[in-house]
Amino acid sequence: MDILDLIVIGGGPAGYLAAQRAAEGGMKVMLFEKKRLGGVCLNEGCIPTKTLLNSAKIFDHAKNGQAYGVKVSDAVFDSRAALARKNKVIQMLVSGVGMTMKKNKVTVIYEKAKLKEKTSEGFLVEAGGEVYTAKHVLAAAGSDTLIPPIPGVKEALMDGLAATSREMLELEEMPEHLAVIGAGVIGLEMAAYYCTAGVKVTVIEMLDKIAGTMDFKVSKMLQKELQKKGVSFLLGHKVTEVNSYGLVCEKDGETKQITADKILLSIGRRPSIEDCGLQNVGVVVEHGKVVTDENLCTSVEGIYAAGDINGKVMLAHTAYRESEAAVNHMLGIDDEMNYQAIPSVIYTFPEFAGVGETEESAKEKGLKVKTAELPMAYSGRFVAENAGGNGVCKLIMDEKTRCLVGAHLLGTYASEIIWGAAALIEQKVPVEEIKKIVFPHPSVSEIIRETTFQL
Amino acid sequence: MDILDLIVIGGGPAGYLAAQRAAEGGMKVMLFEKKRLGGVCLNEGCIPTKTLLNSAKIFDHAKNGQAYGVKVSDAVFDSRAALARKNKVIQMLVSGVGMTMKKNKVTVIYEKAKLKEKTSEGFLVEAGGEVYTAKHVLAAAGSDTLIPPIPGVKEALMDGLAATSREMLELEEMPEHLAVIGAGVIGLEMAAYYCTAGVKVTVIEMLDKIAGTMDFKVSKMLQKELQKKGVSFLLGHKVTEVNSYGLVCEKDGETKQITADKILLSIGRRPSIEDCGLQNVGVVVEHGKVVTDENLCTSVEGIYAAGDINGKVMLAHTAYRESEAAVNHMLGIDDEMNYQAIPSVIYTFPEFAGVGETEESAKEKGLKVKTAELPMAYSGRFVAENAGGNGVCKLIMDEKTRCLVGAHLLGTYASEIIWGAAALIEQKVPVEEIKKIVFPHPSVSEIIRETTFQL
Repeated sequence: MDILDLIVIGGGPAGYLAAQRAAEGGMKVMLFEKKRLGGVCLNEGCIPTKTLLNSAKIFDHAKNGQAYGVKVSDAVFDSRAALARKNKVIQMLVSGVGMTMKKNKVTVIYEKAKLKEKTSEGFLVEAGGEVYTAKHVLAAAGSDTLIPPIPGVKEALMDGLAATSREMLELEEMPEHLAVIGAGVIGLEMAAYYCTAGVKVTVIEMLDKIAGTMDFKVSKMLQKELQKKGVSFLLGHKVTEVNSYGLVCEKDGETKQITADKILLSIGRRPSIEDCGLQNVGVVVEHGKVVTDENLCTSVEGIYAAGDINGKVMLAHTAYRESEAAVNHMLGIDDEMNYQAIPSVIYTFPEFAGVGETEESAKEKGLKVKTAELPMAYSGRFVAENAGGNGVCKLIMDEKTRCLVGAHLLGTYASEIIWGAAALIEQKVPVEEIKKIVFPHPSVSEIIRETTFQL
Repeated sequence: MDILDLIVIGGGPAGYLAAQRAAEGGMKVMLFEKKRLGGVCLNEGCIPTKTLLNSAKIFDHAKNGQAYGVKVSDAVFDSRAALARKNKVIQMLVSGVGMTMKKNKVTVIYEKAKLKEKTSEGFLVEAGGEVYTAKHVLAAAGSDTLIPPIPGVKEALMDGLAATSREMLELEEMPEHLAVIGAGVIGLEMAAYYCTAGVKVTVIEMLDKIAGTMDFKVSKMLQKELQKKGVSFLLGHKVTEVNSYGLVCEKDGETKQITADKILLSIGRRPSIEDCGLQNVGVVVEHGKVVTDENLCTSVEGIYAAGDINGKVMLAHTAYRESEAAVNHMLGIDDEMNYQAIPSVIYTFPEFAGVGETEESAKEKGLKVKTAELPMAYSGRFVAENAGGNGVCKLIMDEKTRCLVGAHLLGTYASEIIWGAAALIEQKVPVEEIKKIVFPHPSVSEIIRETTFQL
């Protein structure tokens, strides 16, 4: 059998895009996927959540349309229909990825693949009883949901009381009371979805803030907005037990029983290292993550790792960009991965999007920064479209260079506005130049321009 | 009386922002406004239309929610409530502008102001029987609706059959059949609003395309999408008469009577030159527009003109930026107005946003360009949120510099995505650099990144 240029292990965002770009670059590529093309992102992550959140948003608007002159007396959320639409969307997009692979002559093999050894000809990869040889291997096996080591969790997962986001995206019967363990992106988006659909939701988080490492102050504002919509939060609480009534949590030595008929485990994800045989060829793994450099090279020349498996910034769009940087390195094209301007979005209502440094991370790094904030009410469009809504734009500028190093938005359209801020940070555009950019009026995006005048 | 640093004539976007920026720069500023702060944009243009369009969009979603799992049997559009909300929004934003003026110690005088003469002390401006003197004058008197010289139009305006956008934004009773003369931004947005609210709408346009000078092919797609929603178009038709049944239009010698109980006149706007006395000091006006240079200087040193009055790009955000460039020139700060990257948005459903060159304008200028297009279905979020919707991203690249010179989007969120493209064009970022920008996934904005890979 011929020697391939590239074997890709894993058909998620890192894997399928790497396969496409490599094939476009003239490489002979084979891609192995054990389940479905699209990976977690497309099948049980980004896309299904956004599809359901869109349904929930339409329901929310219909229920609360009277402020805008829309009278609806009987809005009903049909979660089965929403799930059916979600499955249809996944189907369309998965088959789209398949067509892209075909068009680019990438051979897709639906088998679990494992690196076996390095020979003089290349890397041997075993899958479905066959052995394949390639000059380069890209490990893009993704990540798995972290199951917290809490007493009772395993039993609760078995009997269906506890669930990961995967099962929650298939839930046909709405629970009465959903307890969410972990207030990161997944926990918050699920809380927003189920709360809007009419479920009582309590989010329990060990830290004293929601939304992980996102900007502290803006996170606090998001929390308030979600509370207004009905989500309850227990911050600084540790879950100590899952039992048949729900769960027990603890703060400052006091314990509390939370009654819940469904528990979502959303404390995070961890790289899926075990299955793809990286240890067989001596790839260095540290703290459960494959170690990679700015070209996504692992410790073994010819083996690359992109996406969640390297545990750097576990987001689909990081995976996309990493896969391109990796392929460019294979092709001899100068391209290095830069992690300074990767946006993060939480698709709640309102949306929360951030990119670059937060005030906290900048200070930790010893950067001398100036920050500026404007309430979203400075945006005419925001006022026009949000009766009683709240939001903010916060910008972080490096005082030395006068370039933007961080931007954080809470409000409608934040997810679609933030890319421009990523571009300005990536391109190191000084604030004085940003002031000269013409933003369309009226738009929520204008708030970025106006906020720069405070810097 | 003291000599002012700056007199601003007109309190619309150009005027109030110039006053604010000048005051922030330490100038002593007086602003004259004959009606209400905010001008046409805030009181009878951008903001009221977007408020009403938002109401219509919520109604549209509620009516058509079944595709997303939202069942509503009795959605009713209460146009009076929508109008009431619109008036409340205007009120809030107008008072916000007033507060900004106050905070910056700008004296606002609600009188019509007229330039009288230039003396050794400065320019004399008369208003409400008083005379004021200033070293600089900014003419920002805006524009008026063009009334087409069609037989019967004047009578129809008198008896209420015909209306400009101003009256259409106050209409409490929905017409049965609205005829719109002119398929520019205003005509299309009004068509979208009234059509969604349940009115039969016919748009009559002299040209063979809608949306003015916006990209030809994308305009054709927008037309199709609006037709799907129920809007009828008569392109290449000239309105020859307005009568009590509606209007008569003509194409290739054949005439047609269109029955309508309301006719919107939306063929364009023209600079409001007459009232502010520019002729008294010899300011040059050509083709009904005040002539200005890249610093917004008129032919008379010390007199500037910003916003619709110079007729360059009659959009509120152009006015904003022009007013800043003008004030910077007064303050001795190096800053020139650049008209290459001004976005245009039509807030229909789907939205149409463009910036920079179109394929047509680039060719007219003799630029050697490469274009690329991707359907919106390449965006996972677009597919997730738009059942049966259509859209496109079209990019125009200068082959010599490999920089983006134009971007045109048809689809949801286009209005909020386009600013980033404006930034990339303004900053002359090569396509190879744009590929390295990380866009959030899933977002509709990603379509821009993906399209660059076709260039």
